[in-house]
Amino acid sequence: MSAPVGTKTDKEIGVAVLGLGNVGSEVVRIIDDSAADLCARVGAPLVVRGIGVRRIADDRGVPTELLTDNIEGLVSREDVDIVVEVMGPVEPARKAILSALEQGKSVVTANKALMAVAAGEIASAAESANVDLYFEAAVAGAIPVIRPLTQSLAGDSVLRVAGIVNGTTNYILSEMGSTGADYAGALADASALGYAEADPTADVEGYDAAAKAAILASIAFHTRVTADDVYREGMTKVSAADFASARALGCTIKLLAICERLTDKTGQQSVSARVYPALVPLDHPLASVNGAFNAVVVEAEAAGRLMFYGQGAGGSPTASAVLGDLVMAARNRVSGGRGPRDSNYAKLPIAPIGVIPTRYYVNMNVADRPGVLAAVAAEFSQHEVSIAEVRQEGMVDEGGQRCGARIVVVTHQATDAALSETVAALSDLEVVQSINSVLRMEGTTE
Amino acid sequence: MSAPVGTKTDKEIGVAVLGLGNVGSEVVRIIDDSAADLCARVGAPLVVRGIGVRRIADDRGVPTELLTDNIEGLVSREDVDIVVEVMGPVEPARKAILSALEQGKSVVTANKALMAVAAGEIASAAESANVDLYFEAAVAGAIPVIRPLTQSLAGDSVLRVAGIVNGTTNYILSEMGSTGADYAGALADASALGYAEADPTADVEGYDAAAKAAILASIAFHTRVTADDVYREGMTKVSAADFASARALGCTIKLLAICERLTDKTGQQSVSARVYPALVPLDHPLASVNGAFNAVVVEAEAAGRLMFYGQGAGGSPTASAVLGDLVMAARNRVSGGRGPRDSNYAKLPIAPIGVIPTRYYVNMNVADRPGVLAAVAAEFSQHEVSIAEVRQEGMVDEGGQRCGARIVVVTHQATDAALSETVAALSDLEVVQSINSVLRMEGTTE
Repeated sequence: MSAPVGTKTDKEIGVAVLGLGNVGSEVVRIIDDSAADLCARVGAPLVVRGIGVRRIADDRGVPTELLTDNIEGLVSREDVDIVVEVMGPVEPARKAILSALEQGKSVVTANKALMAVAAGEIASAAESANVDLYFEAAVAGAIPVIRPLTQSLAGDSVLRVAGIVNGTTNYILSEMGSTGADYAGALADASALGYAEADPTADVEGYDAAAKAAILASIAFHTRVTADDVYREGMTKVSAADFASARALGCTIKLLAICERLTDKTGQQSVSARVYPALVPLDHPLASVNGAFNAVVVEAEAAGRLMFYGQGAGGSPTASAVLGDLVMAARNRVSGGRGPRDSNYAKLPIAPIGVIPTRYYVNMNVADRPGVLAAVAAEFSQHEVSIAEVRQEGMVDEGGQRCGARIVVVTHQATDAALSETVAALSDLEVVQSINSVLRMEGTTE
Repeated sequence: MSAPVGTKTDKEIGVAVLGLGNVGSEVVRIIDDSAADLCARVGAPLVVRGIGVRRIADDRGVPTELLTDNIEGLVSREDVDIVVEVMGPVEPARKAILSALEQGKSVVTANKALMAVAAGEIASAAESANVDLYFEAAVAGAIPVIRPLTQSLAGDSVLRVAGIVNGTTNYILSEMGSTGADYAGALADASALGYAEADPTADVEGYDAAAKAAILASIAFHTRVTADDVYREGMTKVSAADFASARALGCTIKLLAICERLTDKTGQQSVSARVYPALVPLDHPLASVNGAFNAVVVEAEAAGRLMFYGQGAGGSPTASAVLGDLVMAARNRVSGGRGPRDSNYAKLPIAPIGVIPTRYYVNMNVADRPGVLAAVAAEFSQHEVSIAEVRQEGMVDEGGQRCGARIVVVTHQATDAALSETVAALSDLEVVQSINSVLRMEGTTE
């Protein structure tokens, strides 16, 4: 550390770092390496008072005397002004953050899981203590999203936020799209390259993206949305055949987090937050976001469509976002001010998935005989789901014999409820052998 | 207006709007239309106290009693807390803003020309008065760029900013690229569609982009760069032939604003800010930014490469940026705080264009005989400019007769000085009939 440990002048800003993983190590390294620059930007030196860890050892790459496993003791230190929480998961982070806030410390956190379940409780604690609470790193790593939404668009009206906010699944889907690999093969590649965890459930089942969707929806619409409010479908069932069909339709497939403000016929507003794999037209800006990159598209009334793109994960990018928050919180400590506070004044109800209108792609195997297409089309029509495009192709077995047909239907906008009923009715049709997949199509509104 | 004019309670935030053009009208409209939302976000109602205009008339779409041509009187009003300057150009805006700041008003401005020449003077005045000065709308319209650079990346180290920051020229170049039109034709189209002014000089000669480059370089590198420090070349000489050659090289052509921090062998840092048309590889994120859209790519040490994309001009998008700044300034008025201040502590010297290493594209007509390519290559080699790629093709006249050859050379990185000498020497060669164009290539570093 560049500044002596434990000393305090009136001008130093004392920092407690909770967690010393990829992100925490980078945060501590940058505070040390960029001490002079950070001091100039803050107006006072940033000094790490201690680092909270589960295991104290002398091989952690930082002075051992900074390490402590007494988190509560660390955040309570009088010479700590700001607590940086990069340890996850929800507990013990929640307890440590609430304790820090109650004791008047400002808090910077990268903990998306926590902010997605307990933002209300934590924001209230920050409000009561009149201190800063920043969490830019919780969504899309280094990509500034929270600050543009809360500040740059503070005078505008956000209509919709749609993003690729999980690098693991985007890597897998990009691989499937470019190589024709199936899900299992692309997941194995991602694991081998370190892009997927040993247990990829949180990523591939959309839990991580849903946490981020909850945070994005909350700040975009000035309301409170928690992870449980987010409709969620994973991407493990997306097949190589879906990618082939998508390509024929001029699309690719992405796992999207979508937050939308809806207004019904009576003028009543509600908010929808949802995560699912969806077909995206190739000319949509999100279609060309590949590999482990993230991007968030924001549509606002006056600003129009904005896109933010960059690295959504990794130690360095996430540390960059944490450091930005830390410098802002520290500046406020120096100037006696406080950053923008939580404003969830809108208190919008959550729209159930059933009422959400989107377009759908349905891929099914059918009997290869006259009248089948008509029967299939009739089911859509009976449920008032309008068809935009149909593709039918014969299938051949390994011996080269015709063995049925595949029908791909793309609908105009319909509600989820109408489509679910259509799909149920289709599977009861004698001529339909199997419904292979049902995916939504986003990025077009016809 | 939703709130009565001229009244003041302790809780109202009084706003003076200077200018009632496209942007000013939108700002006033949104303050009125979104009064309840803005009040919830600010914590107090925003009330327009008056609108400064050159011409008072009753056809301006706002209550006539709000209009005044006494700008000085308006900004001096005791019930004005924040002055929004959207009138341009440098004067009388400079005088009005300085007067407002001296009287303790916070200032929001969209005036890029002013901020590019007088940022130092204005920032000092804001500092002395301890009030907010925001100018997000001065660069890239609604796209949040200033705030991400000053806040989100406050703990990171920015290496480079490269952007398409002028919609008019990007529209013209996109047209040339997609239709094969020449400059004059594409400019005529842009004018007809309202994308180009009657006198397009500020756009096509790069003055507008240079002003934005000065602002971006200043905030990205915590130093002071003015419009005069920016090396500038316009895009009026880019030809349809250049686009054809660019395409053959896997590139397109964009007018770029580039800001870079350089470190020489002794460790001395300097800053380069420059605007010129350049070849950009088609797989670079800026290559697919077309039409009147803007985009800014930021490369930072920890964050990696980030891109911000959206509408860079127009009344509504610019008003969105102005309103975001206004809400932040108003929140600070309510809470008694103050936003991040100017920090130009780095005080870096400006690197002259001669020392800047980039890649070049040189297109020339030569005599069609043996040995010419060798003679041309020898000149590059003598000036220590290394060639990456050469293309030679025969030219035919209208009668179908060979009438010379065209050589296109793409170099590896070389300094501007070395290349200028090479080009001078080439034009002295007897076998070189004409140097058709010299353009830089950005987005690759080989």
